[in-house]
Amino acid sequence: MKIANTPKPPYYAVIFTSITAEALEGYAETADRMVELAQQQEGFLGFESARDGIGITVSYWKDLESIKHWKNNLEHSIARKKGNEQWYSAFKTRIALVERDYGKI
Amino acid sequence: MKIANTPKPPYYAVIFTSITAEALEGYAETADRMVELAQQQEGFLGFESARDGIGITVSYWKDLESIKHWKNNLEHSIARKKGNEQWYSAFKTRIALVERDYGKI
Repeated sequence: MKIANTPKPPYYAVIFTSITAEALEGYAETADRMVELAQQQEGFLGFESARDGIGITVSYWKDLESIKHWKNNLEHSIARKKGNEQWYSAFKTRIALVERDYGKI
Repeated sequence: MKIANTPKPPYYAVIFTSITAEALEGYAETADRMVELAQQQEGFLGFESARDGIGITVSYWKDLESIKHWKNNLEHSIARKKGNEQWYSAFKTRIALVERDYGKI
């Protein structure tokens, strides 16, 4: 996993934080598939993910429209439903406008 | 680690993504101390952190002013300098305005 090579702000971040439940059947495959699928979406700019007790996945998007389009993707909607009902005991999704960034890469 | 119990948006997120280098002397102690110190700052709303190859720490703040104030904290500035020069081979900090959130907690 590398630090996402995002363009100059402004752009959007979707911060998805989760705690997994016990029954994780099909979870890893679906997570991999969602990454593959997200990368094919219009407006996708990159993502970063780590799990260690809590899971944090941040995906980066060009604008709110591309986030909405991805949210309405059928396969993604089915995966989210399973996540909500089965895989996650708790989760939070935050939609945020990246105003500024800096670092060394 | 729990999902941060943040208030209703809008509020700010500082998304800090990093890759650690080899020489990590003093790193864990400083990381713990920075969490302790951040929690004492005016405007601090919570944080979430996971490391697994890449490290992602998201801290939540009331407004840009509280982020700026924390950035100017002397002990934090010294820690950031060490992180930049010694502990991190790469990092990126993104300042983002959380416009919307949802989930189950």
